[in-house]
Amino acid sequence: MTVYAPPLKDFRFVLDHVLGFDRLAALPRYQHLDAELTDAILGEAGKFLAEQWFPLNQVGDEQGSVLVDGVVKTPEGFKEAYELTARNGWIGIPFDEEHGGGQVPATVSTAITEMMDAANASLSMVVGLTAGAIEAILHHGSDEQIATFVPKLMTGEWAGTMNLTEPQAGSDVGALTTKAIPQDDGTYRIQGTKIFISWGDHDLAENIIHLVLARTPGAPPGTKGISMFIVPKYLVNADGSLGERNDVKTVSLEHKMGIKASPTAVLAYGEDSDGAVGYLVGEEMRGMRYMFTMMNAARLEVGISGTAIADVAYQNAVQYAQERIQGRPIGAPATESVPIIEHADVRRMLLSMKAQVEAMRAIELTNAFHLDLGQYHPDEETRETHRLLAELLIPITKAWNTDRGVEVASTAIQVYGGAGYIEDSGMPQYYRDARIGPIYEGTNGIQAMDLVGRKLPSAGGKAIMSLIADLKSIDADLEAAGPGFESTRRNLTAAIQTVEQATGWLAAKGMEDPNEAMAGATPYLRLLGNTVGGYLLARQALAAKKLLDQGAEDKAFLDAKIVTARFYNEQILPETLGLLGAVTSGKEMLFALEPEQF
Amino acid sequence: MTVYAPPLKDFRFVLDHVLGFDRLAALPRYQHLDAELTDAILGEAGKFLAEQWFPLNQVGDEQGSVLVDGVVKTPEGFKEAYELTARNGWIGIPFDEEHGGGQVPATVSTAITEMMDAANASLSMVVGLTAGAIEAILHHGSDEQIATFVPKLMTGEWAGTMNLTEPQAGSDVGALTTKAIPQDDGTYRIQGTKIFISWGDHDLAENIIHLVLARTPGAPPGTKGISMFIVPKYLVNADGSLGERNDVKTVSLEHKMGIKASPTAVLAYGEDSDGAVGYLVGEEMRGMRYMFTMMNAARLEVGISGTAIADVAYQNAVQYAQERIQGRPIGAPATESVPIIEHADVRRMLLSMKAQVEAMRAIELTNAFHLDLGQYHPDEETRETHRLLAELLIPITKAWNTDRGVEVASTAIQVYGGAGYIEDSGMPQYYRDARIGPIYEGTNGIQAMDLVGRKLPSAGGKAIMSLIADLKSIDADLEAAGPGFESTRRNLTAAIQTVEQATGWLAAKGMEDPNEAMAGATPYLRLLGNTVGGYLLARQALAAKKLLDQGAEDKAFLDAKIVTARFYNEQILPETLGLLGAVTSGKEMLFALEPEQF
Repeated sequence: MTVYAPPLKDFRFVLDHVLGFDRLAALPRYQHLDAELTDAILGEAGKFLAEQWFPLNQVGDEQGSVLVDGVVKTPEGFKEAYELTARNGWIGIPFDEEHGGGQVPATVSTAITEMMDAANASLSMVVGLTAGAIEAILHHGSDEQIATFVPKLMTGEWAGTMNLTEPQAGSDVGALTTKAIPQDDGTYRIQGTKIFISWGDHDLAENIIHLVLARTPGAPPGTKGISMFIVPKYLVNADGSLGERNDVKTVSLEHKMGIKASPTAVLAYGEDSDGAVGYLVGEEMRGMRYMFTMMNAARLEVGISGTAIADVAYQNAVQYAQERIQGRPIGAPATESVPIIEHADVRRMLLSMKAQVEAMRAIELTNAFHLDLGQYHPDEETRETHRLLAELLIPITKAWNTDRGVEVASTAIQVYGGAGYIEDSGMPQYYRDARIGPIYEGTNGIQAMDLVGRKLPSAGGKAIMSLIADLKSIDADLEAAGPGFESTRRNLTAAIQTVEQATGWLAAKGMEDPNEAMAGATPYLRLLGNTVGGYLLARQALAAKKLLDQGAEDKAFLDAKIVTARFYNEQILPETLGLLGAVTSGKEMLFALEPEQF
Repeated sequence: MTVYAPPLKDFRFVLDHVLGFDRLAALPRYQHLDAELTDAILGEAGKFLAEQWFPLNQVGDEQGSVLVDGVVKTPEGFKEAYELTARNGWIGIPFDEEHGGGQVPATVSTAITEMMDAANASLSMVVGLTAGAIEAILHHGSDEQIATFVPKLMTGEWAGTMNLTEPQAGSDVGALTTKAIPQDDGTYRIQGTKIFISWGDHDLAENIIHLVLARTPGAPPGTKGISMFIVPKYLVNADGSLGERNDVKTVSLEHKMGIKASPTAVLAYGEDSDGAVGYLVGEEMRGMRYMFTMMNAARLEVGISGTAIADVAYQNAVQYAQERIQGRPIGAPATESVPIIEHADVRRMLLSMKAQVEAMRAIELTNAFHLDLGQYHPDEETRETHRLLAELLIPITKAWNTDRGVEVASTAIQVYGGAGYIEDSGMPQYYRDARIGPIYEGTNGIQAMDLVGRKLPSAGGKAIMSLIADLKSIDADLEAAGPGFESTRRNLTAAIQTVEQATGWLAAKGMEDPNEAMAGATPYLRLLGNTVGGYLLARQALAAKKLLDQGAEDKAFLDAKIVTARFYNEQILPETLGLLGAVTSGKEMLFALEPEQF
């Protein structure tokens, strides 16, 4: 049995002292929000999730979701927890008040999502998918579609899914072949098979609203020919009641390594008829564009799950290290055993996990903050700057956080030693669950290509230049902070120079031959993520020092911020220098072998 | 269903062109061995393991070993495979001919062990444990014990185990409390509970010979008071037939994340009597010393398993990448899809796996080679040099290889994308199985402490100085090799300088305060392993170039050696530079926080 304490204090600290909560609350859309209300929301969410979701996490892993006679049965307690979640308003929390939502900023809902993912990564997914369906319909659906589907999704009576992947179309969504045949009544008939559909069927809700990408007759190949459809599991009558069963069938569930409570389905559309009934969202051929507008949120969410799983794994490693008595400090008599947290190497593992988790959290919240300002700031130019920064950070949050998430979950097992390899400890689940993060919503390789191929050159490189300017801005503050900050300053300066060198190289080479730049995309993403993480931790250390100088209470927390930032920048950040070679080696070695020489 | 091709060509190449097989065959003990016979042995082993063991690997994971009415039932086919393995002589392969063994060098049996681990990591363990029991009894047992136990262990009629761990004594073996009470007849009665006993019970063999560490009455605390006992599951009659059941009971099996076919037992000794009957091995109070003589082999074996699992995971990733059609090269028309091995980022993953696997393999074989020469070279001084090098490399092979093994298994999943997260693909098993490597036979943190606290200072630092001299010896050869080798030379030089700096710092600081050195032990081990790996790959590239210059056939293989070495040294090795900060930061930051500040 593992433990989880929502990191409310850390959320608050980053909001106030790294991002500036006031700037968020000053946005017209968030006039109703102040620090107190935000604390209340996060506190309530944390309490609810720790009490109602977290106890189901290990049960969910053990029982999994299973397919029985064509119907998916979820683990014990999941249905009640989902209903309660919706009733308490947590599904609708990011949406406008006019649609019954909580209208909180992405920055705040990011914190809530992190707690959901930490408490129960599988259950969190169905909330995210349902929110995604609401988002898509609100943005691109007709008034009638909004009226029919959104309220029931908000209340959790219904749930949502996203249907992209097909057997021959994984990372290459444009290769999909599912057909949508227009009917005289304005509806479509959907025929095809979708795979890897998360929460593709289940018993948490009375209806499931599938958002399905498909191709209309004569549509061009690739992503340009894709349209988006609403395909409900049960058709909806004019009065809003449920009508007949639509022709979508759960063929099978995948036997996955982790997130086992989340049913991953193969769905067959239109096998027993002329097609499942589908309703076009927006216009034909624009499905991929609509999907893109939801992609930022989806990728941010996956990045958040990296932080979340790392945090809960870290918290348990700390508790284990505090309680497990084993061995002696060097030089102590043979009879005196101590908690393993007293051993240098265990300390190294714990501190490195702590530093990574706090860096990941700062990155995800910063990303969300830029999304908020980029969408709702009244000044157009300011909005544009933040929008570009948000876009730039999305692949970093997604990939850097999930890669680090896997590493932290693995380190947590190592702290436990043999006990961490036993399923009963709960630790293997985090290691298994975390491993999906680098894969879905675009593999981390695809994130790196997005970063280098699209985000760096976007708007003439404005985003990366703006980010580098931000990074450099800390130098004067670190210099002023004096003793204890020298090594952070030195290491950050070196890392930022590396970022500049790497970025310059990619920009120059990428113009000659995109493959030269793409060859270094993955190490570049890591390099940039490392540096942004070090910067954000250093910002926290500077804020902590200032508060301490002002005589703030909570010295233990603030001192730890300073230690954590220094540890990261002295001992984790330097990895960055070693990545420059990989970024700037180009494609030659990668393509020097024939496939059969591997 | 996964694939596995024994890496016979790579074994041969490392034996001949990195280590020098002739030096091995020239040892008096190995007069009977030549290159042809070695090839025949390895070829036969590879064929047998690929055909008989490998098909049971995934079955073993799915079925696991289970405890039914106090008896352990192993997965389908395991019993037959174990019997066949023994009958073919693979258990006895490293032991002297006079005891019925194959008398092959550790270097050769290392290659066989790697193939066993790759083919079936769970089954390989019982062979390793049985070999360990043979080793212990041959070295420290009486003639009578040798006569009674060794022949039946060699033939696989019986199997062996090692019983060290107890609930309060994991990494700290000295804390064990199992009692051994001497009897008038010279035997002992064993009372206590042992946990995490691999293959602690099973149905592969008719008897199980437990080697148990226990404490005699009045023995001093810590490791000094530990003795070693033979405790057979069934007592053995004077005529060698099986007698009555000894009082050792399988209380439970652990529900592990991986190596599920290997039953990990809690064993209770002497619960239903005045103790299980045990026979002292050697002298009282020397059990820990005896255990230490077996520890090199055991830790080497775990390191080998890191290579092995990485290799089979890599091989499957290559095959998947060659077959899976998805996406287009940048700039190609939207209609032409290619195998994913054509994408730069997939190439990066594959080449980085290949480079790591070949570095791991070269390290393990080099380690074994030094063990062979250190034990059997006729010249005492030469023997001593090799013995010290072998001792130095043991913690590196164990920890560096298993850490890299986990990373490679994770990358292999990434190549598969979503399909790699599905258990049916076979890839999650490698990721789960690999994760035990860094934990058992002394966690990797303990390996690092062994490296820094014992191996570096051993014999006045002779081993590390000798290793650094070896590393530096390549410089002139790289210079002479000319074009294509400059970047390897430059990067290796920088890495070797880092090794020298780090080693010097640890030596100086460790004298002042051992905790200062211990704080950097883990990054130091990684740093040294990275550099040794780069050196050994560069040696291979030089040999390949020489062979190519001489007009050797098999150009594809030799060219790949050159590419792999260059890739590793340009793109993986530089990580080393980023580790220096962590090695030389000392203990200050690690101990700056109180336990409750984590």
